[in-house]
Amino acid sequence: MESRPSDGISFTTDYGTADGFVAACKGVIATIAPGTTVLDVTHQIPPGDIRRGAVVLAQTLPYLPPAVHLAVVDPGVGTARRPVAVQTPASILVGPDNGLLGWAAEALGGARDAVVLDRRAWHGARVSRTFHGRDIFAPVAARLAAGAPLDQAGTPLPVTELVTLADPVCRGSDGQVEVEVLTVDGFGNVALAAGTSILAELGNPDEVTVTTAGRDVVVTVGETFDSVPAGDLVLYVDSADLVTLAVNTGSAAQRLGTGAGDLVRLTVPAF
Amino acid sequence: MESRPSDGISFTTDYGTADGFVAACKGVIATIAPGTTVLDVTHQIPPGDIRRGAVVLAQTLPYLPPAVHLAVVDPGVGTARRPVAVQTPASILVGPDNGLLGWAAEALGGARDAVVLDRRAWHGARVSRTFHGRDIFAPVAARLAAGAPLDQAGTPLPVTELVTLADPVCRGSDGQVEVEVLTVDGFGNVALAAGTSILAELGNPDEVTVTTAGRDVVVTVGETFDSVPAGDLVLYVDSADLVTLAVNTGSAAQRLGTGAGDLVRLTVPAF
Amino acid sequence: MESRPSDGISFTTDYGTADGFVAACKGVIATIAPGTTVLDVTHQIPPGDIRRGAVVLAQTLPYLPPAVHLAVVDPGVGTARRPVAVQTPASILVGPDNGLLGWAAEALGGARDAVVLDRRAWHGARVSRTFHGRDIFAPVAARLAAGAPLDQAGTPLPVTELVTLADPVCRGSDGQVEVEVLTVDGFGNVALAAGTSILAELGNPDEVTVTTAGRDVVVTVGETFDSVPAGDLVLYVDSADLVTLAVNTGSAAQRLGTGAGDLVRLTVPAF
Repeated sequence: MESRPSDGISFTTDYGTADGFVAACKGVIATIAPGTTVLDVTHQIPPGDIRRGAVVLAQTLPYLPPAVHLAVVDPGVGTARRPVAVQTPASILVGPDNGLLGWAAEALGGARDAVVLDRRAWHGARVSRTFHGRDIFAPVAARLAAGAPLDQAGTPLPVTELVTLADPVCRGSDGQVEVEVLTVDGFGNVALAAGTSILAELGNPDEVTVTTAGRDVVVTVGETFDSVPAGDLVLYVDSADLVTLAVNTGSAAQRLGTGAGDLVRLTVPAF
Repeated sequence: MESRPSDGISFTTDYGTADGFVAACKGVIATIAPGTTVLDVTHQIPPGDIRRGAVVLAQTLPYLPPAVHLAVVDPGVGTARRPVAVQTPASILVGPDNGLLGWAAEALGGARDAVVLDRRAWHGARVSRTFHGRDIFAPVAARLAAGAPLDQAGTPLPVTELVTLADPVCRGSDGQVEVEVLTVDGFGNVALAAGTSILAELGNPDEVTVTTAGRDVVVTVGETFDSVPAGDLVLYVDSADLVTLAVNTGSAAQRLGTGAGDLVRLTVPAF
Repeated sequence: MESRPSDGISFTTDYGTADGFVAACKGVIATIAPGTTVLDVTHQIPPGDIRRGAVVLAQTLPYLPPAVHLAVVDPGVGTARRPVAVQTPASILVGPDNGLLGWAAEALGGARDAVVLDRRAWHGARVSRTFHGRDIFAPVAARLAAGAPLDQAGTPLPVTELVTLADPVCRGSDGQVEVEVLTVDGFGNVALAAGTSILAELGNPDEVTVTTAGRDVVVTVGETFDSVPAGDLVLYVDSADLVTLAVNTGSAAQRLGTGAGDLVRLTVPAF
């Protein structure tokens, strides 16, 4: 089993930054593996929103150097859900086995091996029921970042037994595509769970009719925000290669009243 | 007097992260003591909320390696309140003498020595009236982190003269406990100013009646969120060993309409 | 042309921290220039608010060690606006040429040289239309931080051709000053675009009449928040040497209903 990632730890949670939770985890890491760099991805995943966490990880981790990627969005903390580590070709993902890590593992080249983190000696001296980030995941990530071999972290788990999330909806036929909103970013840009193939499906049109919440809007297909006047909607391919709706200098999520998980229908406007 | 903490600086403020205040302090540290690591605890203490700052510090710092713990929640900046440094067995706390540091000093083993930071040469070239984080506390913390001895930071102050916060309310008798809400975390979990002894006081019941704002709710005593169905209230011992009210996948603070400083009454329900 | 800043990278954006955008940029930096320290100034500039970004940079960067200062507030991303690097005596600023960097360059000693970042080999392997932070600015900043000479980053640009922001309004006559709100900090303190000279202009009074939104309030001129009772307005010189309105333990922005860009009139009250 491979081990020894070449660089520190990345860290993603739904802990927020108003409490000391993130700092306690970093303190545990600094105690076990002094000098390890920790790169924060975000700690503002909405509480318990595994799907949002999975999207952010999958879009961001490919731009990081090989690392131990520690991620904790864990509404089932303290229950039967397993703590796991997943080896990809160059990195190791550490977190709860609730689907959070799967899309990121794929984006990093696929899960090669997995381990249930049941080696008690690698955990904190006392393990609370509600803060496994501090008491299990951070100590394990620190040991792995310091070079300890993954197969000593616990019991091997076939990667086929890892919990997976349902694929987002994306279905097209007869010049019509129905697709799920995958994520909304801080600017209000609405990324759909689809790449450029759905534009090909629609015949690469200059405009599409976007239907959300029963309302139709005709939207220009452009290259960037500036392809339309300020305040107008544009459909473009974003920096993660997703077909995305934006308002030039505004919020498409607000304009369309839509959010992650909602269904959007795209059709080619009639003449 | 001991000195030379073994590792960098931790940093806690009410500055928020939307302004450049935190960065200016870090810039001062990096200028005086290049290469010093700074671990952010949080910068989102509500403006001027000394008590909340004291709780977060006391709960978090014990998980950090020995360090210079820089903390600035300082509504009295520019007034007669003293800037101080407090030596604990392995760490040094630096901040205003307004009660902010006391519970953390206890959690780190107790205040051994204290110094009023009145050595002008250790401050910034110009000291503003309203930004002592940048002009006094950060420069002093940087010098201490670089190994300068604490007793050169200023005038010794007997630790008994440090300002202290009032103890939170927690009184029990006749199968009834009245206890202050110590803190509410970002998930809405309501931590009471009491450990497991109050559960013993109540006879370790399976359920308690929780009275807040004149309303009674019967709450299950459990081990974690999952001890009750989603949406239900649970009373458990949190990761800081505090008796805490939570809603499984929800916010107890919202449900109970309660916040830090409020009084909660716990009784054993009649049959 | 000078090069080789002595220390890492500072990083300022309007990306927020809820998405993985900041982390993706840091990952690119860590990949190109491993071990480079990155000091976050803020990522909470309001989306597209170039002026606010320019103020925060100008107030904060002088307190940082010499560095590559990476700043991205870029509503025109993907359009004709140029990506640039600007050499100051000891630091290099990297960002869009939309006025964002100008006040900071002045605060750091003035722009000496500038370069349009058109050297394709320094950019990411693929350059998206909407995320130049990740694909252009971060890779260039990383190379500069690693010591690559600025003049290899692209085509020289006369510094006189850099885009500049309009100066904020500040005009005084006949014992009256009209001045723009430059910025509001997280405490609600309202900093005016003026230094102490306007107080001299008014004859260094003990009180001023502040007119905002058609309403007059008489405000004490003090040295710090505590110069007035809690809840009262005070006018003082802030830690960035700006004449500023505050409420002692409150928010002046809220009290006065004013924000960045608004005009405030100061006069000396009649007797």
